Amino acid sequence: MDKINSESKEVKFLRSSLTDENPYMTTDDCLKWLEDQRKQTYIQIKQIPFTNLLQWYFEKHTGNLFHESRRFFSIVGANVNTNWGVVTEWSQPIINQPEIGILGILTKEIDNILYFLMQAKIEPGNINYVQLSPTLQATKSNYTKVHKGDTPEYLDYFLDSTNNTVLLDQLQSEQGARFLKKRNRNIIIEVDGDIPLKDNFCWLTLGQIIKLMEHDNVVNMDTRTVISGIQFGSFSKESVELNNELEIGCKDSSVYHSDLLTSVLENTGALNSTDDIISWITKMKTNYELDVERIPLNTVKGWLKDDYKIYHESKSYFSIIAVIVEIGNREVRSWTQPLIKAEQEGIIAFLVKKINGIYHFLVQAKLEAGNFDIVEMAPTVQCITGNYRNATSEYRPPFLDYVLNARPEAVKYSAFQSEEGGRFYREQNRNLIIEVDDYFPPDIPENYEWLTLNQLKQFIKYNNYLNIQARSLLASIGFK
Amino acid sequence: MDKINSESKEVKFLRSSLTDENPYMTTDDCLKWLEDQRKQTYIQIKQIPFTNLLQWYFEKHTGNLFHESRRFFSIVGANVNTNWGVVTEWSQPIINQPEIGILGILTKEIDNILYFLMQAKIEPGNINYVQLSPTLQATKSNYTKVHKGDTPEYLDYFLDSTNNTVLLDQLQSEQGARFLKKRNRNIIIEVDGDIPLKDNFCWLTLGQIIKLMEHDNVVNMDTRTVISGIQFGSFSKESVELNNELEIGCKDSSVYHSDLLTSVLENTGALNSTDDIISWITKMKTNYELDVERIPLNTVKGWLKDDYKIYHESKSYFSIIAVIVEIGNREVRSWTQPLIKAEQEGIIAFLVKKINGIYHFLVQAKLEAGNFDIVEMAPTVQCITGNYRNATSEYRPPFLDYVLNARPEAVKYSAFQSEEGGRFYREQNRNLIIEVDDYFPPDIPENYEWLTLNQLKQFIKYNNYLNIQARSLLASIGFK
Repeated sequence: MDKINSESKEVKFLRSSLTDENPYMTTDDCLKWLEDQRKQTYIQIKQIPFTNLLQWYFEKHTGNLFHESRRFFSIVGANVNTNWGVVTEWSQPIINQPEIGILGILTKEIDNILYFLMQAKIEPGNINYVQLSPTLQATKSNYTKVHKGDTPEYLDYFLDSTNNTVLLDQLQSEQGARFLKKRNRNIIIEVDGDIPLKDNFCWLTLGQIIKLMEHDNVVNMDTRTVISGIQFGSFSKESVELNNELEIGCKDSSVYHSDLLTSVLENTGALNSTDDIISWITKMKTNYELDVERIPLNTVKGWLKDDYKIYHESKSYFSIIAVIVEIGNREVRSWTQPLIKAEQEGIIAFLVKKINGIYHFLVQAKLEAGNFDIVEMAPTVQCITGNYRNATSEYRPPFLDYVLNARPEAVKYSAFQSEEGGRFYREQNRNLIIEVDDYFPPDIPENYEWLTLNQLKQFIKYNNYLNIQARSLLASIGFK
Repeated sequence: MDKINSESKEVKFLRSSLTDENPYMTTDDCLKWLEDQRKQTYIQIKQIPFTNLLQWYFEKHTGNLFHESRRFFSIVGANVNTNWGVVTEWSQPIINQPEIGILGILTKEIDNILYFLMQAKIEPGNINYVQLSPTLQATKSNYTKVHKGDTPEYLDYFLDSTNNTVLLDQLQSEQGARFLKKRNRNIIIEVDGDIPLKDNFCWLTLGQIIKLMEHDNVVNMDTRTVISGIQFGSFSKESVELNNELEIGCKDSSVYHSDLLTSVLENTGALNSTDDIISWITKMKTNYELDVERIPLNTVKGWLKDDYKIYHESKSYFSIIAVIVEIGNREVRSWTQPLIKAEQEGIIAFLVKKINGIYHFLVQAKLEAGNFDIVEMAPTVQCITGNYRNATSEYRPPFLDYVLNARPEAVKYSAFQSEEGGRFYREQNRNLIIEVDDYFPPDIPENYEWLTLNQLKQFIKYNNYLNIQARSLLASIGFK
């Protein structure tokens, strides 16, 4: 019997996730503090014609959109050939940002509880301007100090972690439909000594961050991806039961939440073994082909460009726009940049079901153009609203009806969450977790599989398995 | 305490690996049988000028070398930019074969021992023509029956495995210096019913296959990669000790071999945790950049073409040649094809060291042009002989002296092993495992790390972690 070691990082994370009291800042105070930040900050964002972009230009022969430094990101074309889905060939604009950025959170144990250093960060594309972000969001240009500009706060902790403890350090993907193989390094570091608390930063427990995800658009995408990688440990059924009794039980949790805790901790009782799941994903990667060729943006078919936007002729999917941003408290900074604007909101939903008494999540092997490795594990339903409203059954995503027609008591989680505000213009998607019952049909399409939370967490640890939509949704799962 | 389940697939594999007696074919008989196959088969292979290639042609504007069906493989150019190593920009010819092939082995339990169905397979590039291959080696063109030609033997077992048990099913990479992101599906299936034994096939235990790897060029590359993925299970120190005593002890093993068994089974006592290793590889992938652009073969710099070959101006690395092959017993088949010819033999070596009483392997994070994910875990030393003989220290691979100057008793394994005979012309590399002692310097360069066998096996399970050279060398490790 494995006794759970209360000093392990997994138990530290778990203890923090079960804590939503905080003597430094309550969850309600945090919401008010963010609201104050929004009020204090002068911010204006206006769409402009492309010709008014400063330092950004369309390359002559290709039509690709570059920053004059050739850093940050660029917008290029991609030609996609695949045997996945109904449409097997298309071209599209795509964001190219080959550098690996850092998304880092500093943590510190105070009175036996791990606190996370979070930032109230203004990002131009955010629907509400200010959201809770990791301690550090830095592009490689930022952290290698290649270009001018202020050094981000707390950067040095991440460049040299030798005096502190690395709790998590993973390479994770971004949106495959928008980015060409973009990935970020997700890091959590525990600091032993004192950390000065800068303006716009605060200390929160993991439980508070998870609670804040019940609100719309408070916790930003970058925080959600880092949080999703946190491991809570892996134990036999007996250990989980014993330890629940003895030590880490959360007596004030609902049945649903303590059942989620069982699903994340227990490494026995899953419907499929880890090897079965690796075999399934291997088969999917073998069966489905993805050939993506970078092409000039001006050769992308079915996309039009006017003075203000590059858009699909059907007016679906997304468009590329240009904006001027003015931000400031005392001093006002101003710049122009391109942003991606989604044409519709989307739905991101996991169906969950108790199998052998343990919650399993229905995972989809989904192919997207920018995926690093053909298919990634995605939520059960991940689609653009509107696309399906009048859709014929051929185009209608599987399991969508279970999401749209769920009884209220089956909706275990529902909130709007934003995409990254540095690239996307006011984009939010409805995130849902829906419980289905024993009447749910046992036969599922070959690119779907049931996994426990414990298994999903295991796959997150290794590269390129779960897509950012799946990770983001899993980040919202608490145990209290 | 986990009692090892003697019916688990891990223990089945382990029992087979500890068995080298075989009532159907002894190991010596297998060597003779292969020799007989070589004698019985008429085979001739001759270098020809490119103009004599049938069905293969150089594309006009690009100089790329294609088969007229546009299937099989093609030879294209790659332009590489990286910040890894001394040379940061180069271009080179590279094999493009985007389809995922199947390397599959059928197994069957007879009298409680798992037997592997192996094939004596002729491949044109093999130095000795016939080597021991998996039950099935099939390209996607083969197994989807797109083009004419015989259906490979035993294919149906792999296309539909529902009546049998999948023991292993992983996507694994090929040589990153030669192939552009090529991968194969590695599968092992256990069959319940009878399997007809076709000509040129035989049943061997895993222990026999490993013993045959002590001989030069007997077990082919495709067999070695499949074997390397086999998991023997993962247990606490106490479980390993107890179970060694009770059940699966190999009393006739040497100390070295039973220490290797400990290193593969024990999941405690490693110098670095799995999370530490993921953090290390994350850091390497973040620090090192790899930008590979496909370019026309005729724009590759520093490479020359004459009537018979495409070669580097320094006459190092490799060349591309054309051959005519004649093979037959009763009936003679003949075809022409391009092959890759290495200009020098290479060295592939792991340094191993006992740390905390457990064997650890010194792993290199190595960047190669065709790598799927920037760096892969490679052997301690992986280099071309000759390159280093007069090399200045700058170009001299780290740890090479430990390999070249090893005392005989420190050489735990040494054999020549062949690269894949369908693409490579008589290419063999010296594979070595060298034990180093406590005087070995504790400070290692940042792109090296110590892993136990148990940890290496864990990383093999997930995609894109270990390169084929590392996997091939690990396949040779037995416990008896």
